Amino acid sequence: MNEQKGILITIEGPDGAGKTTQLQALTSFLQAQGIPFLATREPGGGGYVGQKIRELLLSPESGRIFPRAEALLYAADRAQHMEEVILPALRQGTWVVCDRFVDSQLAYQGYGRQLDIPGFLRPLNQLVTGGLEPDITFLILVAAEEGLARVIKSRGDSPDRMEQEKIEFHERVCAGYEKLAKEHPQRIVLLDGMQPANLIQEKVRKSLTPFLENRK
Amino acid sequence: MNEQKGILITIEGPDGAGKTTQLQALTSFLQAQGIPFLATREPGGGGYVGQKIRELLLSPESGRIFPRAEALLYAADRAQHMEEVILPALRQGTWVVCDRFVDSQLAYQGYGRQLDIPGFLRPLNQLVTGGLEPDITFLILVAAEEGLARVIKSRGDSPDRMEQEKIEFHERVCAGYEKLAKEHPQRIVLLDGMQPANLIQEKVRKSLTPFLENRK
Repeated sequence: MNEQKGILITIEGPDGAGKTTQLQALTSFLQAQGIPFLATREPGGGGYVGQKIRELLLSPESGRIFPRAEALLYAADRAQHMEEVILPALRQGTWVVCDRFVDSQLAYQGYGRQLDIPGFLRPLNQLVTGGLEPDITFLILVAAEEGLARVIKSRGDSPDRMEQEKIEFHERVCAGYEKLAKEHPQRIVLLDGMQPANLIQEKVRKSLTPFLENRK
Repeated sequence: MNEQKGILITIEGPDGAGKTTQLQALTSFLQAQGIPFLATREPGGGGYVGQKIRELLLSPESGRIFPRAEALLYAADRAQHMEEVILPALRQGTWVVCDRFVDSQLAYQGYGRQLDIPGFLRPLNQLVTGGLEPDITFLILVAAEEGLARVIKSRGDSPDRMEQEKIEFHERVCAGYEKLAKEHPQRIVLLDGMQPANLIQEKVRKSLTPFLENRK
C-alpha cells in the first residue's frame, strides 16, 4: 500500500481580497480531481473551543484585548485546530485547505499591531506548530482601501473587531503580507486580487501541478 | 517623593488546600497594615476576556481541549491579566495578591497533563511574563485525596473540568508542586495545609516581614 501524506494549502490575504471565491473554486477543482480534501479556517476551525475563541476574537463586545493576549488566543485556537483537525487529516492523506494560518497572524499581529515578530510571534508559532509549514500558500493581495470597500459592499452585517481597525492598520497588514511573500518565494504564490477571479484560479491550479503529479 | 514598586504575592496549591481562607486572612492583614493591595486570581483575572477564557477552561461543556491549546488559553488569560491588572497595580505601588499563577500552570499542565516543561511551558511563560516572577509564593499543600474530599464536602455545586480529572492526575499535580518548592526555595514558602488555618497564617505573615520592613 502506498501511504501518502496530505498536503497543507493555505489561503491568505486581507479581507475583501477574494479568498472565499478562490477557496470555493479550488475545492470544486480538488473534488473534480478525486482528491480527498478538507476545507477549514482560522480562527475557529477547532470545534467547539475554536468557535468560542473565534467569537471572543472577532466580537466587538470583547472590548480591549491586549496584543499579546490576542496573539495567544489565536495560538490556542491554532493548537486545538491542528491537533483536532489538521494533523489527523494530513496523516490520513487528506489535503487540507485552510482559510488563514500563521501568515495571517504575522501580518495582522506582527505588522498590523506591531507586535515583536522575531522575539514573540515566531517563537510562539514555533511552539504551536512544531515547525510545520504549509506546503503551498496562495496570498491574494488588494490595496487595503479596496479590500475594505469590497467588504462593506458585500456584507449586510456590521464589521467585526478586526475590520473596525483604522485604515493605517490595514495598510500595515497588506505591506506585511507583501514582505512575507518576498521572504518565502518558494512557498508563497502571490496573486493580484484585482485580476478576474477565473484568471486567479487558473494560476492557483497551475501552481498545484507538481503536487498533483506527485500523487500519480 | 519615594516611589515604591508593589510586590507580587502568589498563593498556590491544589484545590481544597485552603488557599481561599489564607488569601482572605492575608488581605485582612494587609488592610490592617494600611498597605494598598489588590486581590485577584487566575484564570479569569483579566476583565471580560479573562472571564470568558475562565469559563471556557473550567466548564465541562467545553469538552476535549488539547493540552497545548489549554496551556495557550491559560497563557492568553495571563497576558491579559498582567497588562490590564497586575502590571499597572505594581507600577502604582499596590501590592498584588494573586490566587494561582505560573506555578499552577507548571503543576497542572506540566506535571498533571505531562506537557513538556523545558521545551514548551517554560518558553511559553517566558514570552507571557517577560521573566517577571512573584516576589513571594505561598504554596499550601495537602494530599490530593484530602484536597478533593474537602472540595466535595464544602461545595454544593458539581466539580469543574479540572476537578473532574482522575485522582492520579491530582497526585501528579501535588508532586509537581513539591518539586517546584524544592527548585525555588528562595521564593516559595511551603505550608502544610493539614495545620490549623491560624497557624498557617502566622507563618504567612512572618514570611512577609522583610517586605513590610522594606516599606518603612
